[in-house]
Amino acid sequence: MVLSNYSTEDKVLLAVDCIIFGFDKEKLKILLVQRDFEPEKGKWSLIGGFLTKEENLDEAALRILNHLTGLHDIYMEQVYSFSKVNRDPAERTISVAYYALIDIARHDKELLKHNPMQWFSLKDAPKLIFDHNHMVEKAMARLRRRALSKPIGFELLPKKFTMRQLQKLYEAILDTKLDKRNFINKFNSLDILIKLDEKDMSSSKKGAYLFEFDEEKYNLKVEAGFNFKI
Amino acid sequence: MVLSNYSTEDKVLLAVDCIIFGFDKEKLKILLVQRDFEPEKGKWSLIGGFLTKEENLDEAALRILNHLTGLHDIYMEQVYSFSKVNRDPAERTISVAYYALIDIARHDKELLKHNPMQWFSLKDAPKLIFDHNHMVEKAMARLRRRALSKPIGFELLPKKFTMRQLQKLYEAILDTKLDKRNFINKFNSLDILIKLDEKDMSSSKKGAYLFEFDEEKYNLKVEAGFNFKI
Repeated sequence: MVLSNYSTEDKVLLAVDCIIFGFDKEKLKILLVQRDFEPEKGKWSLIGGFLTKEENLDEAALRILNHLTGLHDIYMEQVYSFSKVNRDPAERTISVAYYALIDIARHDKELLKHNPMQWFSLKDAPKLIFDHNHMVEKAMARLRRRALSKPIGFELLPKKFTMRQLQKLYEAILDTKLDKRNFINKFNSLDILIKLDEKDMSSSKKGAYLFEFDEEKYNLKVEAGFNFKI
Repeated sequence: MVLSNYSTEDKVLLAVDCIIFGFDKEKLKILLVQRDFEPEKGKWSLIGGFLTKEENLDEAALRILNHLTGLHDIYMEQVYSFSKVNRDPAERTISVAYYALIDIARHDKELLKHNPMQWFSLKDAPKLIFDHNHMVEKAMARLRRRALSKPIGFELLPKKFTMRQLQKLYEAILDTKLDKRNFINKFNSLDILIKLDEKDMSSSKKGAYLFEFDEEKYNLKVEAGFNFKI
């Protein structure tokens, strides 16, 4: 008694839209593109395209991202499928949102070749086409949940980073100010950082120690999960 | 530079498949249906159907569930979209999986009217059609994550339940034996249970106290989240 009947009219286009979060040591950003066709030509949009016959959704997300930005080897995760009737006024389209986290500095060379992409601070992002703002919110909620239950930063920070940068990242994701001492204690108790014998001298005379993630311990914590209380 | 070009051939059928978890005070179960058409006629399947033109996915999930089982007012949550090429050999179909949690006893009257549905213990569930076993695994992983980060039980247990039933539920979801004293302490520390002045006399001479969830505190914990360490 599964419903077997369907009408060909019920067939839909399946789109994939990519929410690319980046961090530039200060702010959480999102990669957007200016739409160059109607409807909503000229407005800002997530990076997207359509699923084709010979690929699954994961493959489509990677292909679309690579084709439009040059990015490759990016870990993407399916977030949610958006299906409001008339979300795309031109034609019934269901869109599956994917998200990725990248370190902006590490990827900017690839991205600069591709126009007209632009990084926007999440706080100052423009109104997007269709339900794309809703997609960003949903991905942001996922990112926040992830940050509270697993370590985060590996994909978003440069290989070597200061405690201040790590704290800035958490503050950006959780959208809240964190107490410095509490944050440091909390993070040290996770035991996933390696303190380097090297300093970042760019922000003060005294300099700030640089850290790396201990990749093995980091990955173990990702699997085990924790509750990062603020 | 969003990819605007697509071919009508790329249009797909969008199915919705429902993973209905139930608990009968002892075991975690799943509601299945025997498929009565080809391909895979006679095999067991999740409850499913196709998205139609005038509804979004949430509405489709509720409509399909209600039409096939009589169940209504059930809270369903989107889990994931499955898109392997040829997952349905008859036609390219992408399926969005939804899951729901229900107390079997509370709903069996509605369900019995509808055939040929059957509850299977998760442990003894048959091989399902297509990628439905994979869908169940994914929903099960979601349920497990949920049980570790938020209280669970409100939808799955009868209104009044014993500590033993609550523990059985957690053991079924987490697929592990739990120490009774630790479990009770852990749960009491959450402060979401109301101990009733009433006993369940069915399982021992002495009887076992019945509990209810304090709905307000329960919902606050659902929002706040926690880390239920085993």
